[in-house]
Amino acid sequence: MKNKHWIGVDFGGTNIRIGLFNHENKLVCENKFLTEANRGPEYIIANLKQNIQMVKGDHDIGGIGIGMPGPLNPYEGIVLGPVNLPGWDFVPLADRITEYFGIPCYIENDCNVAALAESLEGAGKGYPIVFYITVSTGVGGGLCIHGEILSGASGNAGEIGNIIVSDKPVKHSFLNSGSLEGMASGTSILKLAQKRGLKVNHAHEVFKLARENNETAREIAASAMDSLARGMAAIAHVVEPHIFILGGGVSTAVPNFAAEMKERFEQYIYPVMRGKIQVELSQFNEPGMIGAMYLVKKKVTRLNNKT
Amino acid sequence: MKNKHWIGVDFGGTNIRIGLFNHENKLVCENKFLTEANRGPEYIIANLKQNIQMVKGDHDIGGIGIGMPGPLNPYEGIVLGPVNLPGWDFVPLADRITEYFGIPCYIENDCNVAALAESLEGAGKGYPIVFYITVSTGVGGGLCIHGEILSGASGNAGEIGNIIVSDKPVKHSFLNSGSLEGMASGTSILKLAQKRGLKVNHAHEVFKLARENNETAREIAASAMDSLARGMAAIAHVVEPHIFILGGGVSTAVPNFAAEMKERFEQYIYPVMRGKIQVELSQFNEPGMIGAMYLVKKKVTRLNNKT
Repeated sequence: MKNKHWIGVDFGGTNIRIGLFNHENKLVCENKFLTEANRGPEYIIANLKQNIQMVKGDHDIGGIGIGMPGPLNPYEGIVLGPVNLPGWDFVPLADRITEYFGIPCYIENDCNVAALAESLEGAGKGYPIVFYITVSTGVGGGLCIHGEILSGASGNAGEIGNIIVSDKPVKHSFLNSGSLEGMASGTSILKLAQKRGLKVNHAHEVFKLARENNETAREIAASAMDSLARGMAAIAHVVEPHIFILGGGVSTAVPNFAAEMKERFEQYIYPVMRGKIQVELSQFNEPGMIGAMYLVKKKVTRLNNKT
Repeated sequence: MKNKHWIGVDFGGTNIRIGLFNHENKLVCENKFLTEANRGPEYIIANLKQNIQMVKGDHDIGGIGIGMPGPLNPYEGIVLGPVNLPGWDFVPLADRITEYFGIPCYIENDCNVAALAESLEGAGKGYPIVFYITVSTGVGGGLCIHGEILSGASGNAGEIGNIIVSDKPVKHSFLNSGSLEGMASGTSILKLAQKRGLKVNHAHEVFKLARENNETAREIAASAMDSLARGMAAIAHVVEPHIFILGGGVSTAVPNFAAEMKERFEQYIYPVMRGKIQVELSQFNEPGMIGAMYLVKKKVTRLNNKT
């Protein structure tokens, strides 16, 4: 296994990025193309195979890891109908790729592979329990313990967007009323701001207006951060991570976001826990590709060590 | 190590139970006495040593495990001031016991050792991710992954009583407003029922009145179960356990509690997750002693395997 190359795929609703990594985990080649989600799974799988083949070339590949939006079943490698990928209901993607290339393929939730990348090589390096949170169009999460993803009973551990953080009748998509994603995602912040008359096109502009003392923007920003703080406190009371890593468009665009969130979420945890949990921004802009590479490399290496 | 005996201690606010287990994990001797919490740590430690000595006799003991109320630091073996144990602020209990007997002693949160017992030998046997919840005077929890306790950054993983499940201004002890413990513990249920004029002395009587169609009791019981369901859903979205195990006086006294809670909490999780997470009652009435024994046995055995 030692000299093999590995492929990590970041499969998003808009773009797909394929990376070829050498045995030292260095990216040696990358390919990015439009997902064209509306063309459905057969077209996309054909496109994916062709692009993987190009990146692969004549290299000896140990396996292919794919990080993509859930829900999915990582144990069976089946995509279960992500919101942004129409037609992907019960598609056995891992088997399709494995059969075509004759090498192992594993799929995992995009936030979980991001957590893995941050845990192994990013802001979480050296911490035993790492919880990654993305605040972007949605709110998602991923948990790594001692460098291993905790996928959960059916692959849905870390799907924190659906945690109820408020009694307010805020309904967002098919999530719970008062869900974390409905209260704190970029989409929710932007929608509420526009409804309340602010001229903004992105959630981080609401935070900018708030810093400029626009009262409406301050209220909206404070409410979103309070909801996120409640969600982080709930997570802290369940697994008490050594570090929360905040990624995604909102987290990284708002100045001082990690420090502000640390202060806010600590109000909602036991006094004895305060000061024990770090909060940092994500180190990778695009953790998906490298996380997917580590996913498959770890799984294949472990299987080989067993036999 | 193979033929050693092990001691497990269930250190509660009212009683202390000490168990001697043989190398096959069978309880061969047990001793129970009053904690007399108001007499403070020095008296209790002296009493504890004396009683451990009696139970120990001439047996060759591998180690002593103690499960007790948090907050505590399991990594350093320090008790940090549990509500029901006045004077126990920064008491290095594990070192005190280790120095006296010359054998390893570990302490851990009582819910965490209960989770360990259920995970290894109880209702959670065979499930990779086990989340134990006690609904008793308080609400607490413990998480075991592949038969190992997840203690968290400072030993407070599983302290779910402080999770915010409601915006209602319900204040309970020093917990968050609208906390799970404030909304769903036996103490909170009883207090609310008495305030609303019900003649009851225990939370499970409220559930009994509810089954007899007392409207006030039905409301109180439904609200408490709804809060617990929201808490379980939050936990499910963080770690997605294969099984929730419900223990404690309320869970076990209310008929059909596990099935009712399964139905309720599944309303608050993603549709793809439904039917994947079991909910069962705890198998042990008193999981603390056996869990504490497994705690120390696993830790000492692991250390010996390393050297």
